[in-house]
Amino acid sequence: MERKKNISMAVIKRLPKYHRYLNELLRNDVDRISSKELSERIGFTASQIRQDLNCFGDFGQQGYGYNVRELSNEIGHILGLTKEYYVVIVGAGNIGQAIANYINFQKLGFNIKAIFDINPKLIGLKIRDIEIMDIDYLDDYLKDNKIDIGVLCVPAKSAQSICDKFVKNGVNGLWNFAPVDLIVPEEVVVENVHLSESLLTLTCLLNGDIK
Amino acid sequence: MERKKNISMAVIKRLPKYHRYLNELLRNDVDRISSKELSERIGFTASQIRQDLNCFGDFGQQGYGYNVRELSNEIGHILGLTKEYYVVIVGAGNIGQAIANYINFQKLGFNIKAIFDINPKLIGLKIRDIEIMDIDYLDDYLKDNKIDIGVLCVPAKSAQSICDKFVKNGVNGLWNFAPVDLIVPEEVVVENVHLSESLLTLTCLLNGDIK
Repeated sequence: MERKKNISMAVIKRLPKYHRYLNELLRNDVDRISSKELSERIGFTASQIRQDLNCFGDFGQQGYGYNVRELSNEIGHILGLTKEYYVVIVGAGNIGQAIANYINFQKLGFNIKAIFDINPKLIGLKIRDIEIMDIDYLDDYLKDNKIDIGVLCVPAKSAQSICDKFVKNGVNGLWNFAPVDLIVPEEVVVENVHLSESLLTLTCLLNGDIK
Repeated sequence: MERKKNISMAVIKRLPKYHRYLNELLRNDVDRISSKELSERIGFTASQIRQDLNCFGDFGQQGYGYNVRELSNEIGHILGLTKEYYVVIVGAGNIGQAIANYINFQKLGFNIKAIFDINPKLIGLKIRDIEIMDIDYLDDYLKDNKIDIGVLCVPAKSAQSICDKFVKNGVNGLWNFAPVDLIVPEEVVVENVHLSESLLTLTCLLNGDIK
């Protein structure tokens, strides 16, 4: 399958949504779908969908629509879902626990190998058989284990130093829930979930002034 | 202050980040900042910053930079932070608890009035003095109380029906953590936090194929 390089961030951000909808179709035994039907479900225009998917090769056949399984597999491949990922969570508060408990992540190939926290009351407790370890051992743990993704569920003030530990030990993917922008070398990918900013986007849109 | 209408979603999505950085400057007693300095901190280009902020009126003075407090106040106003919001959370699992426990939301003017769940083991428990109530009472509660924002921390399959209850009772802002796209009337604003999609964006970028 020939893929064009330099896919825009906007397309990349839409791919997980395509993947979710296509898997829903598969669960409902739908084999083929036209870009028009897909557009009605997913809410992007049909021409947007054709344009997005063309970035990754020639999928649809004029008049026959897309083969749902083939398209889902290919998008899964582009999303890196054909691999397994080793994940470490730092911060075992509510968000860290939510991530650790979310069984769907495991189904997608994300294996949570360890959880770290600074709170002595949490250290030694288990979340789904994974013991919460003392943050002081994070560095040693990362030296001894190959980890792909670090999840930061820590307060803003600790985030950069935890980030630095991950980066120093070769963890190139960071999923950051702390309300800061991490400073990382070019080869490291950071995906932020800034909850306060999401909430303020909501109130901004609720606020009639700018509509 | 004269504001232009039809601000693009891209600008709206950047505003909370401006607000976060400006408040950090205020905490560090910085009164004035040039778009160049702000750009170095925040990571947008100086011209992008000037262009964004011009949407909302005439802030910077050539050669003098921005008045940090004035700009922060104005952006806070645009973000709707001069108001108080009454919030109801549905779903008292880890994510719901994280939202309920996040003290910063209260500081920003978000008052969590009630939490609902379907799980009998959780009903009656308290999170920060707010009792978790039986989901069966949600409809009655919303009839009797003016609520601005509904937070959906429920599984995908229950999300639309909870959404419909909120909408029917005049709740026009929905913060949705369920991995579905809610169907709502035009006057209702939905802000999604789709964690799986965020994680898949990360792996997509980690995956060398498309870079």
